This record gives sequence, C-alpha cells and structure tokens, in this order.
Amino acid sequence: MLQTFRLILKTVRYVGWSLFWLLIWDIIVTAYYMLFLDSRVSFPLMPLTLVGSALVVLISFRNSSAYNRWWEARTLWGAMTNNSRSFAREVLTLVDDPDGLNPVKATLLRRQVAYTRSLAAQLRGEECPTEVATLIPAEEYERRSQTNNFANNVLQGSAALLAGEYRAGRLDSIGFMRLESTMVELSNCQGGLERIANTPLPYPYAYFPGLFISLFCMIVPIGLVDSLGWFTPLASTVAGFMLLVIERIGADLQSPFQKSEHQIQTDALCANIQKNLDAMLRDAARRGARARVAS
Amino acid sequence: MLQTFRLILKTVRYVGWSLFWLLIWDIIVTAYYMLFLDSRVSFPLMPLTLVGSALVVLISFRNSSAYNRWWEARTLWGAMTNNSRSFAREVLTLVDDPDGLNPVKATLLRRQVAYTRSLAAQLRGEECPTEVATLIPAEEYERRSQTNNFANNVLQGSAALLAGEYRAGRLDSIGFMRLESTMVELSNCQGGLERIANTPLPYPYAYFPGLFISLFCMIVPIGLVDSLGWFTPLASTVAGFMLLVIERIGADLQSPFQKSEHQIQTDALCANIQKNLDAMLRDAARRGARARVAS
Amino acid sequence: MLQTFRLILKTVRYVGWSLFWLLIWDIIVTAYYMLFLDSRVSFPLMPLTLVGSALVVLISFRNSSAYNRWWEARTLWGAMTNNSRSFAREVLTLVDDPDGLNPVKATLLRRQVAYTRSLAAQLRGEECPTEVATLIPAEEYERRSQTNNFANNVLQGSAALLAGEYRAGRLDSIGFMRLESTMVELSNCQGGLERIANTPLPYPYAYFPGLFISLFCMIVPIGLVDSLGWFTPLASTVAGFMLLVIERIGADLQSPFQKSEHQIQTDALCANIQKNLDAMLRDAARRGARARVAS
Amino acid sequence: MLQTFRLILKTVRYVGWSLFWLLIWDIIVTAYYMLFLDSRVSFPLMPLTLVGSALVVLISFRNSSAYNRWWEARTLWGAMTNNSRSFAREVLTLVDDPDGLNPVKATLLRRQVAYTRSLAAQLRGEECPTEVATLIPAEEYERRSQTNNFANNVLQGSAALLAGEYRAGRLDSIGFMRLESTMVELSNCQGGLERIANTPLPYPYAYFPGLFISLFCMIVPIGLVDSLGWFTPLASTVAGFMLLVIERIGADLQSPFQKSEHQIQTDALCANIQKNLDAMLRDAARRGARARVAS
Amino acid sequence: MLQTFRLILKTVRYVGWSLFWLLIWDIIVTAYYMLFLDSRVSFPLMPLTLVGSALVVLISFRNSSAYNRWWEARTLWGAMTNNSRSFAREVLTLVDDPDGLNPVKATLLRRQVAYTRSLAAQLRGEECPTEVATLIPAEEYERRSQTNNFANNVLQGSAALLAGEYRAGRLDSIGFMRLESTMVELSNCQGGLERIANTPLPYPYAYFPGLFISLFCMIVPIGLVDSLGWFTPLASTVAGFMLLVIERIGADLQSPFQKSEHQIQTDALCANIQKNLDAMLRDAARRGARARVAS
Repeated sequence: MLQTFRLILKTVRYVGWSLFWLLIWDIIVTAYYMLFLDSRVSFPLMPLTLVGSALVVLISFRNSSAYNRWWEARTLWGAMTNNSRSFAREVLTLVDDPDGLNPVKATLLRRQVAYTRSLAAQLRGEECPTEVATLIPAEEYERRSQTNNFANNVLQGSAALLAGEYRAGRLDSIGFMRLESTMVELSNCQGGLERIANTPLPYPYAYFPGLFISLFCMIVPIGLVDSLGWFTPLASTVAGFMLLVIERIGADLQSPFQKSEHQIQTDALCANIQKNLDAMLRDAARRGARARVAS
Repeated sequence: MLQTFRLILKTVRYVGWSLFWLLIWDIIVTAYYMLFLDSRVSFPLMPLTLVGSALVVLISFRNSSAYNRWWEARTLWGAMTNNSRSFAREVLTLVDDPDGLNPVKATLLRRQVAYTRSLAAQLRGEECPTEVATLIPAEEYERRSQTNNFANNVLQGSAALLAGEYRAGRLDSIGFMRLESTMVELSNCQGGLERIANTPLPYPYAYFPGLFISLFCMIVPIGLVDSLGWFTPLASTVAGFMLLVIERIGADLQSPFQKSEHQIQTDALCANIQKNLDAMLRDAARRGARARVAS
Repeated sequence: MLQTFRLILKTVRYVGWSLFWLLIWDIIVTAYYMLFLDSRVSFPLMPLTLVGSALVVLISFRNSSAYNRWWEARTLWGAMTNNSRSFAREVLTLVDDPDGLNPVKATLLRRQVAYTRSLAAQLRGEECPTEVATLIPAEEYERRSQTNNFANNVLQGSAALLAGEYRAGRLDSIGFMRLESTMVELSNCQGGLERIANTPLPYPYAYFPGLFISLFCMIVPIGLVDSLGWFTPLASTVAGFMLLVIERIGADLQSPFQKSEHQIQTDALCANIQKNLDAMLRDAARRGARARVAS
Repeated sequence: MLQTFRLILKTVRYVGWSLFWLLIWDIIVTAYYMLFLDSRVSFPLMPLTLVGSALVVLISFRNSSAYNRWWEARTLWGAMTNNSRSFAREVLTLVDDPDGLNPVKATLLRRQVAYTRSLAAQLRGEECPTEVATLIPAEEYERRSQTNNFANNVLQGSAALLAGEYRAGRLDSIGFMRLESTMVELSNCQGGLERIANTPLPYPYAYFPGLFISLFCMIVPIGLVDSLGWFTPLASTVAGFMLLVIERIGADLQSPFQKSEHQIQTDALCANIQKNLDAMLRDAARRGARARVAS
Repeated sequence: MLQTFRLILKTVRYVGWSLFWLLIWDIIVTAYYMLFLDSRVSFPLMPLTLVGSALVVLISFRNSSAYNRWWEARTLWGAMTNNSRSFAREVLTLVDDPDGLNPVKATLLRRQVAYTRSLAAQLRGEECPTEVATLIPAEEYERRSQTNNFANNVLQGSAALLAGEYRAGRLDSIGFMRLESTMVELSNCQGGLERIANTPLPYPYAYFPGLFISLFCMIVPIGLVDSLGWFTPLASTVAGFMLLVIERIGADLQSPFQKSEHQIQTDALCANIQKNLDAMLRDAARRGARARVAS
C-alpha cells in the first residue's frame, strides 16, 4: 500500500507542474459551469471520442516508435560491449608475445576504452572527456578537434597499430582479418548509434502528441461536467494524469541519449567495459607469467 | 469440462489474493448502493470508457514488449545452445589428436558447460554455482570474485587454451579463426542476455499497468451498479479477473530471469547442453578408438 | 456462389461441434427469455463491450504471436532446405575426386537427408523413422537411444567424415571451414526449430482466449435477446462462429509441429530436400564421367 | 479535382463488379423497407458493431501479414539483384585472365542471368522460359524436366565451372570461398522466395476476410435504413466500397507472384540484372584491353 | 506558450491550403443547417463511426508502413556510412605502401565518395552530379550514360583497382577478400536503397488515406451540426486538422527520397562521409610520414 503510494508520488513528480495546471483548469471549468451557467448547455461527447481515438492512434504509434528507438540504442550499446570484449579476447589470444606480455596488447585495450568513452560523449553532443587523454597518446588527443568524428579516428589508430603488428610478423594474416571483422562490427554499432542520435523522430510525431494531449485535457472537463458535476475535477485530472504520463515517457524515450530519467546510461556501460577489459588483461598477464615460469 | 474447470482454478491461484480483495470491494460497493443510496445517483460511463481505452493501449503495449523481451531471452538461450554445440563440434573435428583423443577437447567441452552455468547464475543475480568448481581448475574458480563478469573470463580462458593448441601446431590458423568466430557468437548471446537482465522496462511501463488496472477495477462496480444491480459483483469480478490475469502475465514476462512461473528455465537448458556435449564427446572417443584399431 | 458455400461448409467442419452447442445454447436462452420472462429485464450492453474489447486485445495478440511462431518455424525449415542444398553443393565442388566421383560425397548427401528426417521426427516428439536406417550405418542408427539429440550426433558424424577428408588431403583447410560455416547454419536452424517446439506460448496466452471466448459466446445472447428477439440465435451464432474460427486458427498455429490442418509439412520438405540432393548428385556424376572421358 | 476523380474511377475498376452488386442490394433493401414495411421494425446496431470490430481485427491482421509477405518477396528479389551484381564483380575481379578476358567469365555471367530467369518462372509455376536456352548449353537445358528444381541445378553448374577454374589454378582457394559465400546468399534468397511462393497464408486468414466482408456489407443497409432512410444506399455503398478495396488489396498482396496489379515484377527485375551484368562485362573487357595495350 | 503557438503555426503551414478549404466548407455546412433547414433533420452518427474506424485501421497501417520505409532508408544510408568508413580503414591498413603512402589509397577513397554521390543522385532520379567528375577519371565519367546503374560500375572500378594491387603483390589474398566482403555490404545497402526508391507503396495504401480523409472531413460537420450548432466549424476543423497532419506526414515518409520536409538528407550524409574519409587519409599520411622519419 505504502509502496503504491510512493510509486504514485514518484510518478506525480515525474509528470511535474503540468498536472497542477491541469487540476486548476479542471476546477475553474467545473466551478464556472456549476455556479454561473444557468441554462445547463449540454456538450455532446462525440467530438471528445473523435479526438480521443485519433489521439490513441497517434500516441500508441509514437510511443512504440520511441520505445523501439530506445531499445535499439540500448541493443547497440550492448553490442558495443560484446564486441569490445571480443576485440580484447582476440587481441590477447591472436597477437604473439615475443617476450613477456606484448605491450601493444595493453595499449590496444586502453584505446578500446578511449574509443567507447569518446563515442559516448559524441552521442550526447559533448566534448571528448578528459579521461580519454590518459588512455591515448597526448598528440593524438590534441587532434580531436581537427575531425568531425574523433571516435572513428581512434578506431583507425587501433587498426594502424594492428597493421604494424601484422607487418612485424607478430599477427598472422587470418588473425588480422578476424580482428578487422570485429572492427567492422564496432563501426556498424557506432554508425547505428549515430543514426539514432542524429535523426530525431519526424517532428509531427515528436511534438504533436504533447500538443494534442494538452488540447484534449482542456476539452475533457467541458465534456464531462454536465454529467459528473462536482466530481469532474477528480475524474478529468485522473484521466489527464494517465495521458500526461504516457506522453512524458514517449517524449523521454524518443531521444535515448538526451538527459532524462530513462536515458541510456552510457557512462556506466563504458565503465563496465573498462572493468571487463581490465580483468581480461590481468588474467592474460597471470597466465603468461605462469607459462614463462613453466618453460 | 472438468479440464476447463481445473484450468480456471489454476488461473485463479495464479492471480492470487488480488481477486479476493476485488470481489470484497465489488460486494461492498453494490451493497452500499443498493441498500443505502436513495436518490439513485447515476454515474456516467464516459470516464470508464476513457480510462478503459487508455488502459488498453498501455497494457497491450506493455504486454507485447514484455513478451518480446521474454522471447528474445529464450531465443538467445537457444542460440547459446546451438553455439555450444557448434563450438563442441569444431573443437572435436578441428583440433588434432596426436595420440588418442586430445585431452584438451574434454577440457574445453567441460569449460563450455562451466561457461553456460556461470552465465545462468550471473543473469539471475546469484553466486557462481558450486558445480562449476568441478568443471574448471580450482585456482580459476577461486578468482571468481575478482572480476565483475566471471563467465567472460571463463570464455577467455578457453580462448587461451585454443591459442595454446594453435601455437603447439595442433590447430591450424583457419580452424582457430572458425572457433574464434563461434566464440564471438557466444559473446554476442551473452551480451544480449545481460542486456535483457540488466535493463528493465522503463518503470512507467513496468508499474503503471498494475496501478491503473487496480484503479480501473475499483471504478468499474461504481459505473455498473446503476444498471446491473445485484449482478454487479459477478460482472465486475469476471471483468477484473481477465484484466488481472493479463496484467500478471505481462509482469512475469517482462523480467524473464526472475523467479516466476514463466521464467526461462536456464538450468534445464544448461543440463541439456551438458548432455549434448557429453554425447558428442562419447561419439568422438568411440570413433577415434575405432580409427586407431583400423590403422 | 457454390464455392463460397463449400468454403463455409469446410469452415464449419473446421470449427466442429462447438458451433452446434453454441447454437443450442443461443436457442435455449432466446426461448426462455421470450416465453417465460414477463418483466422483460433489460441487461445493459456495457459489460459485453468491456469483456469484448479486453478479448479483442488478448486474441489479436495471441493470434499474431501464434502466426509469428508458425511463420518462423516455416522460415527455419526453408533455411534448412537452403542450407542442405548449399551443403550439398559445397561437398560436390570442394571435395576432391581422386578417381571417379569420391564415394564420400554420396555418403554425405545421404547423411544430410538422414539428418533432416531425424530432426523432423524429433520435433514432432516421434521415434527416429526407420527410413533413416537405410541412410546411415546400422551401428550408428543403433546408438540413437543413447543420446537426447540424435540429429545433432548425425551432424557431428558428417563433420567427422569431412575432417577425415581434410586430413587425407582431399579437402583444403579453407574449404573445410566453408563447410563448417554451413554446418553452423544448420545447427542454428535446428536450434531455432527446437526452441519453437520445446517452448510453448505462456499458458495464459495459449488457453485463455479459448476460455474467454466460450464465456463471451455464452453472454452474447443474454445481452442481445432484449433488442433482437427471435433473431437472437441467428445473430449470436454468426458472431460466435467468427470468434470460434479465429480462436481455432490461433490454437492451431501456436504449435506448428503438432497435428493440425496447418502444421508445417516437415515430411514433404524432407522429401523435397532429398529430391534436390539426388538431382545434384546425378548432375555431378554425369559431369565427372564426361570430364574423365574428355581427359 | 480531375485527378481525384480519375483515381476514384481507377479504384472502382479495381474493385469491379462486386461494387455494382452491392449497390443493387443496398437499393433493394432500402426500397423494401421504405415502401412495404409498415411497422418500421428497428434493428439494433449492436450486432453490427460486434461483427464490425471482429472484422477490423481480422482484416488488419490479414492485410499486414499480406503486406509483409509482399515486401519480404520484394526484399528477397532485391537481394537477388545485389548478390547477382556481387557475384559478377567477384567473377570479374577474382578469376585470372591468362590471355585476354577469360571466356569463362562471360559464361558465368550468362549463367547467372539464366539462373534468375528460370527461378522467376519456377516461382510463378511456369515452364522454364525459352530464352534460358540461349544462355546455357543446350544439353543442360534439355535436362530441365529431370529435376524438381532446375534453378538450383543451374547454380550448381556454375559452382562446378568455378571449381574447374580453381583446380586449373586460375582462382585461388580464398577467392573461391568468397564466391561460394555469395552462392550461399543466392541459395538463401532462392529458398526464401520459394517459401513465400509455396506456403500460402493459412486459409482462414486468406478467405475469411472476403467472406465476412460480404456478409457485413449485406447487413449494413439493414442496420442503417431505419435512421438514414433513402440515403442508405449512398452511405452503405460508400462504406462497402472502402471495405472491398481494403479486402482486395490484401487478397492481391498475399500471393506476391500471382497475376495481379501488385505482383512482383520479376521479369523487369531479371531484365535489370541482365543489363547490370552486361555493363559490368563491357567495362571489364575495355579495362582488360587497355591493360594489354599498356603492357 | 509562445513556442507552442509557433509550433502550431509551423504545422498549419505544413498542412497548407487544405485546412483553409476545410474551414470554409465547415462554415457553409453549419450556416446552411442553422439558417435554412427548418425541420432540423437529425443525421445519425453511425456511418461516421463506421467510416471513422475503417479509416483509423487504414491510416495507422499506412503511416506505420511509411515510417518503416523511411527508417529503413535512413538505416541503409547509415550502413552506407559505416561501410564507407570500414572500406577506407581497410584500404588504409591492408594495402602495402612500397614508398610513401600508396597513391592508390587516396584514389580509392575518392572513388568511394564518388560512389555515394552518384548513388544519391540515382535514388532521387537525378543526373550524376558534376562534382563526381572531379573524383573519378574523366573517361570513366563520360561513360555514365552507357549503363543503367552508374554507381554499380564505379564500385566495380574500385574492385578492379584492388584486384590490380592484389596481382601486384601489394595486397594479400585474405585482405583482398576482407575488402570484397565490405564491397558486398556496400552492394547490399545500394540494393536496399534502390528497392525502396523503385517500389512505391501499393497505390491503394498510398492514395486512399488522403481520399478517405477528405471524404470524412466533408461528412464530419454534417454529422456534428445537429448537436454542436454554431460550434461545429471549430470542432470539425480541429478534428480535420489532426487528420490532415497525420495524412500529410504519412504521405511524406512513404517516399523517403522525394522532395519533402522529411526526406533523407542524402547530400549531408555524403558530405559527412567525405569529411570522415578525408580525416582518415590525413591521419594515415601523418602516421606514415612519422614512421618513415623514425626508420
């Protein structure tokens, strides 16, 4: 019970002031109708139903598109995680260690973290974060403003390092191609994420549900007051509350990288990738040390 | 007939106490209206219809999203099964047997089982199960708390073993890459499963259907009692029963790894993988023995 | 006209006795109301509409899920066909023929047919069919009960044969991997089919539409009799007929391998694969003979 | 305005005679009711609404399934085009030219056109077209009736030619596999197209919308005549017209290879592939000639 | 508030004159009914509801199909971007540099831009833009009218250049195949885009929503005037406005390459690809120069 109440409170805060203004409006309409209108004009419900069903079609389409965008963005970040792990595993197992753990492995894993961090910032439209500076050479970090897609250049830098290993004979041709395939996957994830970040929903789908819901909420008390009397504010505020919540979540989900309660937690995902890659590097170092002791 | 009755009973148990409280409420409302209200106030059906159709949109969206999550989780576990079999087949056919069945094959198949078992536990938010300790080296099992993703490290361990076979000349480069591709697939399945386990439905979709259905069930008898009289509890309990069942199944399916009647049976799937892999290893051993006898 | 009538008749047989009982019930309700009830109690249509729209949501979800399962199963069997043909083409072109057509080619194509046949039986929950015994070695067929997934072991047997060709130098490493990739695809199709066969729809989705439709059909005449009078049985039987047909097809499609008019015709698909593979083998033999004559 | 009128006329022709019979029926019902029925029996609208909403669910499901089948078929033919181009590009760049343009290249590109043409005929259930005889050896064309899938045998023939080039040392192993991967894609497209052509929609979905719409159109004037009077034929013919158009397009799209205004234009697509391949061959010949001149 | 007003204004301009004519019509109907009709004929709402719900089904299907086409086109252009980057990265890392940066790399990157530019023009049904002439040899540009798919020939030209590098020993076999795989992806994106550009929605879906919405908007005031009186023009214009906006956006999205406010910004996407490729080439040149200095 208490939990339900807390949930309702949380939701009320989620919707915010709109709900308050709606309540005020509902009360004004009801009071005016009950106190000052003598003739008791009866407003037909037909237009309410008409607008209502057009609204339902529009909102359910918008919200499911918004959810699909959000879920696709989340799926692509998930794939970014998987591919980062696969990239790390392939770097650790396919590149040779002439003596001790090849230092390029640690470099590549760090670069992969830098890649995801700079991509995350790019998607939010932010500057490349300073922690990236600790992961890649300073000189490379300086050039971040000379390109319109720094993450892509970081990835190309990793590819160049791998090409160096290949030409130095520490990575065979087939292994190199396996790593290149993983980088193709990373590129595809990046491209998909950029597509979602750069292509908003067509604006009629993005803004109209909010507009029409406001309109509808303003009409509702006029349509109901004749039959519900003084209960009108209660009924129409509850109905409006539902609509405002549904509208709000659609508006949040349609831009999955913009600041909102439901935005994709890219920083947490990047931190997770970093932890996974650190653990893998530690394991590989331990295994290598043991192998050297054994031989 | 009897079967239908048993099915209804099972469903009633599935919904549980909510149904009972709903019935009580329906009876109270009806009794109060029929016995104490003189003026027979007529409540209009309009708000009921309004809330009802908003509810239908919300619930049908929620339930189909929940079902899609559940089915995607099931599909990914299915892919985990296929890829485990493919991994086993590739290990058994691509790695050379210098004399007798190469013992690393049995090790790798056991590790694959350990991988699926530890992943299943991770997804449910549980500790790594003790049976995993019998499948991998004790020392590796000890390190399970030093990483935030033990399953991933088990997989990397298998990759390191394969790299050892490759460097020892018992697995050629192309075969190694074929196995690495299968491990990429395994990583992708793991990542997809983690995505579903770690990203719940946005909470308005997760909790509101339940909230609004409760609200709706409480309003229904008030709206119906005027026209249905003493039949109200029957009609509104039946209608509420349907809604509660639909709500419950959506709530269950949206978290496919949490304890519920519909949760993904990860343990059964892991046991199945283990049986398949055991049968494949047995076949390979028999075939190898026959080949040695023949030569 | 006649064709339409035949179609209706076919559909009536498809729905079966339920329709008859529904008609009886409709007549009883109407007769009782028209003949014995004096006060002409008026039942409101509201609960009918309420239950009706919840029903529509539930059924349309169930039926589209069921159709998707059915179509996915059909798609996977289609992919099984394609991959079998690709497997055959690769065996025929990639494996060397030291003198005359390499006999292992015919063996592998027969084994592929055995694989699809035993998988089809497995999916229907049947014993491995006896015709498989003519396609694989007797000794292997004997072991069919020692494993919980015989089809998988047949596929592994083919992989072992290919590995033999590879070690004997009649198949190069890259060709072997191409064949292994095709076997990965076959494994994936098999896994997808097993997933559909082994994971039924969550039972509320599977059984409730039938239950609620029965309930709804029983309520309909009560709601209509007041306004339609003696036409009630006609109207409510026609409406019930539509609902029963929709329910029935959903129930059939949700288990695409179980005996029903719409089940996937796995035997016909297997026979088709066999014909395709026979024609391909015949072509290859003719081409090989001509090449030998020419040289 | 004129364009709108022309569009309506085109649509009326699209629906055809059904519309005329519907109009006649509407007039008969209206005239009978207005002229001969004295008591002005009032038919309730409830059954009309009931049947109407069941119809909407059924039709919207059928039409979206039909559209998906049609679009999937179109997508697969599109993929057939892409893969034919990729196949041609790979043949032209990967196979060596010992002196002048290797004649097998032109042969393989012609065979690819023969493959698409014979597949298109197969999907429509027609005989292999005679123009295929000009593209492949006469002897091979003769054998078209000895197989149940001639297109597949044509593809296998191309694979055998490529295997010949490989064994003759004019195509390396890895290039051969790249071409084999493209042929796997072609097989998959072919299989998908055959699946759509051979598996119709379950017949209740295919035939019932038409049946129920006819029934509904017959009931509509009876339900409306009481309130609309002499305007009934107009209103119910317009409503029926919409339903008949929606039904008709669903019926057309569900069998995308059968003769209808919306059928997939397979012949145009094949002609397009042929033109693309001719232009690519011409370019390659020109480039080769220039290279020989230069050297 | 002001922002909301600006949004409404923007939308009104988006819908255009239709809205004005609708308003005129609504006023005429209302005035005629209020001033000249004595008997106050009551028109039933039933046909309005009937046509309305058929309309909702039709429009929601059309709009979601149109949106899917638009989003698929956008996704394919996104994939074109990713694959162009991957192509550039592979060219830059896999092709050898005998002395200094191999000049073929810059050529191939320029050709890739030419490929996307000529494809973008092709999709819009325009001439190949003149800026392509600066990116490829003049002689090749001249031949643009001799083929029905110039973009495809540009891609084949790049493949021929890569084949030249391969035969000259500056690109190994496996790297060549990796690049060929990327070109297969480019072909697939091209094919998908051509499919969307060349296959419009079946015309009943494309034109009927507009037709039926016009019809519906004309009927609405007739149905409402009886109950709403002089408020009719307001109510029915607002309802019609919503419908016209929804119709308009569907009509725009269904042809994602045709001139409209929502068309895919292919030129901006091509410019973006060009910038990315330029930055990658610059980085590679700098890296190469440093390596030469170091050695």
